[in-house]
Amino acid sequence: MPSGKRGRFPIGTPVLDAARQLGVYVESVCGGRATCGRCQIEVQEGNFAKHQIVSLLENISPKGAKEERYERVRGLPEGRRLSCSATIQGDLVVDVPQDTVINAQVVRKAAVDRHIERNPAIQLCYVEVDEPDMHKPLGDLDRLKLVLEQDWGWKDPLIAAHIVPQIQGLLRKEGWGVTVAIHRDMETSRPCIIAIWPGLKNEAYGIACDIGSTTIAMHLVSLLSGRILASSGAPNPQIRFGEDLMSRVSYVMMNPDGREAMTKAVREAVNELIGRVCEEASVNRDDILDAVFVANPIMHHLFLGIDPTELGQAPFALAVSGAMDYQAHEIDINLNYGARLYTLPCIAGHVGADAAGAALSEGPYRQERMMLLVDVGTNAEIILGNSTRVVAASSPTGPAFEGAEISSGQRAAPGAIERVRIDPETLEPKFRIIGVDKWSDEDGFEEAAGAVGVTGICGSAIIEVVAEMYLAGIISEDGVINGDLAARSARIFQNGRTFSYLLRDGEPRITVTQNDIRAIQLAKAALYAGIKLLMEKQGVDHVDMIRFAGAFGTFIDPKYAMVLGLIPDCDLTDVKAVGNASGTGALMALLNRDHRREIEEQVKQIEKIETALEPHFQKLFIDAMALPNKVDPFPHLSQTVKLPPKKAAAEEGVEGATGTAPRRRSREERAARRRQ
Amino acid sequence: MPSGKRGRFPIGTPVLDAARQLGVYVESVCGGRATCGRCQIEVQEGNFAKHQIVSLLENISPKGAKEERYERVRGLPEGRRLSCSATIQGDLVVDVPQDTVINAQVVRKAAVDRHIERNPAIQLCYVEVDEPDMHKPLGDLDRLKLVLEQDWGWKDPLIAAHIVPQIQGLLRKEGWGVTVAIHRDMETSRPCIIAIWPGLKNEAYGIACDIGSTTIAMHLVSLLSGRILASSGAPNPQIRFGEDLMSRVSYVMMNPDGREAMTKAVREAVNELIGRVCEEASVNRDDILDAVFVANPIMHHLFLGIDPTELGQAPFALAVSGAMDYQAHEIDINLNYGARLYTLPCIAGHVGADAAGAALSEGPYRQERMMLLVDVGTNAEIILGNSTRVVAASSPTGPAFEGAEISSGQRAAPGAIERVRIDPETLEPKFRIIGVDKWSDEDGFEEAAGAVGVTGICGSAIIEVVAEMYLAGIISEDGVINGDLAARSARIFQNGRTFSYLLRDGEPRITVTQNDIRAIQLAKAALYAGIKLLMEKQGVDHVDMIRFAGAFGTFIDPKYAMVLGLIPDCDLTDVKAVGNASGTGALMALLNRDHRREIEEQVKQIEKIETALEPHFQKLFIDAMALPNKVDPFPHLSQTVKLPPKKAAAEEGVEGATGTAPRRRSREERAARRRQ
Repeated sequence: MPSGKRGRFPIGTPVLDAARQLGVYVESVCGGRATCGRCQIEVQEGNFAKHQIVSLLENISPKGAKEERYERVRGLPEGRRLSCSATIQGDLVVDVPQDTVINAQVVRKAAVDRHIERNPAIQLCYVEVDEPDMHKPLGDLDRLKLVLEQDWGWKDPLIAAHIVPQIQGLLRKEGWGVTVAIHRDMETSRPCIIAIWPGLKNEAYGIACDIGSTTIAMHLVSLLSGRILASSGAPNPQIRFGEDLMSRVSYVMMNPDGREAMTKAVREAVNELIGRVCEEASVNRDDILDAVFVANPIMHHLFLGIDPTELGQAPFALAVSGAMDYQAHEIDINLNYGARLYTLPCIAGHVGADAAGAALSEGPYRQERMMLLVDVGTNAEIILGNSTRVVAASSPTGPAFEGAEISSGQRAAPGAIERVRIDPETLEPKFRIIGVDKWSDEDGFEEAAGAVGVTGICGSAIIEVVAEMYLAGIISEDGVINGDLAARSARIFQNGRTFSYLLRDGEPRITVTQNDIRAIQLAKAALYAGIKLLMEKQGVDHVDMIRFAGAFGTFIDPKYAMVLGLIPDCDLTDVKAVGNASGTGALMALLNRDHRREIEEQVKQIEKIETALEPHFQKLFIDAMALPNKVDPFPHLSQTVKLPPKKAAAEEGVEGATGTAPRRRSREERAARRRQ
Repeated sequence: MPSGKRGRFPIGTPVLDAARQLGVYVESVCGGRATCGRCQIEVQEGNFAKHQIVSLLENISPKGAKEERYERVRGLPEGRRLSCSATIQGDLVVDVPQDTVINAQVVRKAAVDRHIERNPAIQLCYVEVDEPDMHKPLGDLDRLKLVLEQDWGWKDPLIAAHIVPQIQGLLRKEGWGVTVAIHRDMETSRPCIIAIWPGLKNEAYGIACDIGSTTIAMHLVSLLSGRILASSGAPNPQIRFGEDLMSRVSYVMMNPDGREAMTKAVREAVNELIGRVCEEASVNRDDILDAVFVANPIMHHLFLGIDPTELGQAPFALAVSGAMDYQAHEIDINLNYGARLYTLPCIAGHVGADAAGAALSEGPYRQERMMLLVDVGTNAEIILGNSTRVVAASSPTGPAFEGAEISSGQRAAPGAIERVRIDPETLEPKFRIIGVDKWSDEDGFEEAAGAVGVTGICGSAIIEVVAEMYLAGIISEDGVINGDLAARSARIFQNGRTFSYLLRDGEPRITVTQNDIRAIQLAKAALYAGIKLLMEKQGVDHVDMIRFAGAFGTFIDPKYAMVLGLIPDCDLTDVKAVGNASGTGALMALLNRDHRREIEEQVKQIEKIETALEPHFQKLFIDAMALPNKVDPFPHLSQTVKLPPKKAAAEEGVEGATGTAPRRRSREERAARRRQ
């Protein structure tokens, strides 16, 4: 347990051997010497009707001398046994605890709530090497290789060059006993000795990292127990070269050393963040042996030192799309000098290794229901599918959802409005700001808000305010603010040729203009049209479940996203925010190399749709400009929310309401805008 | 031809395809595009009774458009055809020329007189990569990998990290046509892309290098044609740390940075020598993609940055005995940044990769006769065997054979005596010196020698003068100079308690002292006892053939070596000097990776005998102090040379004639000597 695997074994079989024969992963570093303590198990006593056996403590052998020595020296929790020493003497139900903590590491975070079966690319193997013998003059390394094959089955491993000069000292330091870190990611690769320590080394770590355009997020994890020891984030310092991805590409194009500077900046930031998670978990960075990275295509390329210019223009050609294997030091990431580094594959020129990480985490292809997985940023990555077929696209939503291009928009920070409600009768708003628990109409709000002020509207509230304005009848299905209401409420006021809504009077004055609503409409229409295009490719008229990846998804209310027509209709209980799914995918690939093969294979299978090449996209986009949509019904949503009645289809177009589908802005336009 | 392989193929089969099906190695870089010109063949016309066919020119297809274009642009020698384009139309005898020179390299040296079948670890593959396609968003590298598999069968290659950032530019420079250098040494390793050039690259080079204690020797060779383009040598700069190996080990022990300094010195010397061979052959060092090194164990370790101290004391433990694979830059060897570097395995603590190279070159295990392979230096490496069994040992001959520890000894240099004859009647000598053709008794010798002078006796002449003194009766079987002869000739004169022989009166006065003879006896007895020990292990009383490797073997006269009892009796026509066999072995491993597997496997099979551990060695050594030997008959030698009659066995021991077997001098003794 918990795998539920069962089998019959001769009396006297060590429990560890039985587990291995059943394909149950039980860690062991010392190779059955009862010294590493990694292979702990517990016997569950009782009559197990389900298994038709009675499991008794007397059916496991008593502790032998080695196990008792381990217990005396290192301590063994009540009920725990070392499966390398304990042998089967009769029927047993054996529990493999998932929390075997040897070095008493404090676990600060459980950032990921799932159990990831371990099969890391790195394995620690303790061996005792024969002393040199003049009659059989094999070299130190060669005798080490011999025992690695005999004890652990590693055939003809390579060795990292930097270890070769150290091998004499390492072997002699603790009387020819050493722990060897073997890297083997793919079965077709030769195993490689990447690190050696004198004596028994009982811990090895890895990092999983998501390099986002604005934030770099990292987990530090034990490769042996699978525990997350620290999770942290840092701003991506490339922001100083350009806020969004395309302006960073422009920076590379216009500055001879631009690519190099950005590569250096991101690698330095990663190195600093490694230092931070190591400090947080009191881990020596020299004990980090493996690293997995995900990133969007432009970050991915810059991190690997590749010029991203090609990604800024059709055909958006990736230099590298497949998964990549490095020695970490080859790209200046400072871990153990022999540490490895793996990057997940990119799906397409606008759907990167981060999207692949999210796909690995959420696994649309692992189940039967039609799953929509979206990660909304400046580009939205959209993956739609199930075990039969998966399609993917990106859609250029622009930065409106992040508060940019909105008159009162701002990034999420204390003082930013994050929730909005509008009374449909009075048209009066109430809101909440980040950092204050009270609603704006509650007593004490002004006092509480005094310190930070009410400074603007952040992304999640922009969704809500536009949706609430629509539900309150302030804006029409076409997104036009109804100027007639100015007579009824001072909140609606004329602003040049169009009308605006006053959300908050004061300093600053926070309004929602017609242009703001247009910006949101363009953004949401781009996303929805992309989703719809994939639904058409799949031949479905609805999705069964929606997964929002990324920070944006964590903070928005799915109901309002649906009212706005950002996402298609779906039972709201099937809409979930999954946080940094990309990072979770990286973690899975770190802890289990089978997940690397899984996502490498899946990425090959995923069908990539380039929205710019789909003539139908324009029509879908125009339909999606309406709230929630010109043509699509929202039956599930209608049961929860009273949507305003649809206008007749024949009405004339309202100025600005029929946009044209956005295209990826050319580098020249970007550059020109920044020069202004 | 010349392989003699034959087969039947459908009419229309390209000759290149037929060759490959027959397992005949015909080079091709362009993959059958008729652009690289590497696959040239010639049709031999005529009635071949042996093959029972009539080979006619009309049985090969006429030149097509592609082949004609190649001929027009690059030129095709009379009679030559491109086997990728020419097809079989009937019976043909096809010659695969072994000298297909494409880039008109001047071949300066043919240092190795053998044909080495080519199967290098590096292969150049020209491919045309698909342009990027938005519908199939595979990365540039990934499309490259795809075509490498389609056109050349390379499955899932790795790529050297430094190429990744360059791949976009490399692919786009010549319209998506690139030449890729693939490294695959072992079948069990994944192939690796180590270099890429835009367009067709039609040449790749390798170096084979033997790092000796005093000299570093190097071949520069085309990996495609197998031709040696330059061969050169340079002094090993480590000489400044100590003349012989053991004094270098002492230097490491006594100086904290000693190992590092010596590693740096030898790597710098190798890099300089690479520069020299490149200049000589007008080759760009960036086009060198592979390197193979051999060296004695201490040089091997110092070159790889390993402390050799362990090799200076029992149990003489090698840090590494197996073959090693590096990226050349990992150990600071400057070739193409992706170039690989391979070191042959060491046989034992005193029998290094150089001896393995010699074994590969001479291949005792490839034939039935009992072959003795000796490389005489400060240590003599001895290999004895045939296809059934091979045994190896080293014997500490000391530096006497190199002219050290001999009163008038010197290194081989102009003015050194290199040949000696003694008239058995008059006891008068004649000799020749290096740099002068005449014998010393010929007219004009003194004039010719005037410029350089007569300065001493070099190694080869030491052998001859002692042997001639024995044949002339000046010294006894026990190596004692007969003082009675002083009455007959002034050449023999008393020198303290013993007598000496005056070889040359003048400035300097060149004599052979009793001590000199003792030193030679000790050295030759050590070598012979080692050989004899191996003969006993093999259960043979004679050897069928003798191969002298190394410079010493090139200059000595085998007859005199045998008179002295340096080597066992053998038909003199079966005794050959084979020059730098170690370097030839390195070259073989460079040009054909099968030879790497061959020597790796053979080294595992070779039985290593540690003479110091063999109690019988002492007896063999004492017997070998006599000239040519106390107990062994020399029947073959006796037919060529009139040997003095043997003394009765009962004679008393002569002072100094019974030595004790030499042992490896301890580091302390060496150090003490150097301090004197």
